[in-house]
Amino acid sequence: MKISARNFLKGKIKTVNPGVVNTEVVVELTGGAEMVSIITKTSADSMSLAPGKEVYAIIKASNVMIGVD
Amino acid sequence: MKISARNFLKGKIKTVNPGVVNTEVVVELTGGAEMVSIITKTSADSMSLAPGKEVYAIIKASNVMIGVD
Amino acid sequence: MKISARNFLKGKIKTVNPGVVNTEVVVELTGGAEMVSIITKTSADSMSLAPGKEVYAIIKASNVMIGVD
Amino acid sequence: MKISARNFLKGKIKTVNPGVVNTEVVVELTGGAEMVSIITKTSADSMSLAPGKEVYAIIKASNVMIGVD
Amino acid sequence: MKISARNFLKGKIKTVNPGVVNTEVVVELTGGAEMVSIITKTSADSMSLAPGKEVYAIIKASNVMIGVD
Amino acid sequence: MKISARNFLKGKIKTVNPGVVNTEVVVELTGGAEMVSIITKTSADSMSLAPGKEVYAIIKASNVMIGVD
Repeated sequence: MKISARNFLKGKIKTVNPGVVNTEVVVELTGGAEMVSIITKTSADSMSLAPGKEVYAIIKASNVMIGVD
Repeated sequence: MKISARNFLKGKIKTVNPGVVNTEVVVELTGGAEMVSIITKTSADSMSLAPGKEVYAIIKASNVMIGVD
Repeated sequence: MKISARNFLKGKIKTVNPGVVNTEVVVELTGGAEMVSIITKTSADSMSLAPGKEVYAIIKASNVMIGVD
Repeated sequence: MKISARNFLKGKIKTVNPGVVNTEVVVELTGGAEMVSIITKTSADSMSLAPGKEVYAIIKASNVMIGVD
Repeated sequence: MKISARNFLKGKIKTVNPGVVNTEVVVELTGGAEMVSIITKTSADSMSLAPGKEVYAIIKASNVMIGVD
Repeated sequence: MKISARNFLKGKIKTVNPGVVNTEVVVELTGGAEMVSIITKTSADSMSLAPGKEVYAIIKASNVMIGVD
């Protein structure tokens, strides 16, 4: 499926930290930076997310802010 | 100012495309990937965003989804 | 690609209203309700969105509120 | 109160799964599809959300993505 | 209608700046601060938003970040 | 760091309620209103958020809805 979200960053899962309702997933992006994602535990479980798995971090453009030092 | 958002990705602005209300900013991230951001035109103008400027793409963790091929 | 977003609602595009930066897409969902989406014009163009096209409206669960009459 | 969010989908609560801070609410929409929502536990409690209750799933248009098979 | 969003801040509209698809609404909150909102032009028009009108700025708690100086 | 988000509301933390993955932070805004925020527990811990601390509630304009009575 093709999706309208503009940002797909490739990486590998570093850690998966499940709560009761939500799960925190840390992805090590190709290029070295880290990306933290909060998704539902149900999603994380149904996608069998685990350290080492290759994934994409996906972000809708309207959710990206810009910062300047 | 320190902010609770978990994701700060360094990069350089590639293009700035202003609309009437919103502006589309494309950032070339360190590491090579691109990140597209939609912010208000007022913000883009007041921060003097222009190609070549060093910026951060900032994303709240709850706005990051995970995809698997 | 499988994505962590929990909500995929099937429908058919009713109208596409492009602005300079963003495009408004109205989807008639199977079941009869309407769903309005704002995506970037670049996405709408690259996906060739047009009335009659079969699409999914996709929503991350953390972006869904609940209302009671 | 009238609200600027464009999407109000009628349905009936199927399940309510409380965590410590957030609660997952699954709504069976009129028309048959399901919608998953994450709201604060405080909100879910103060609205007395429970299976069978008639509710609306409410979504701001800028949070709706479009997907194509 | 009661809504699960946790934040309802009372104020009065200061300016309404319509684009093609989205409209920027600036609200002067009771207490003095300003709040900027981007909603669809269709919503702003259908609610007859105009300077001086009493409104609420409404925000889902998961969209609020915290900053420290 | 200067950030493109348009809304920075000054206040003082009233309560901090940690879950497993997310933490709920209630801020008493200057002017009297309250603002509820959900951030990751990791962020709340690393910023040492606690009652009485002076903070800003920060919101991207595209996440602000308008309501009318």
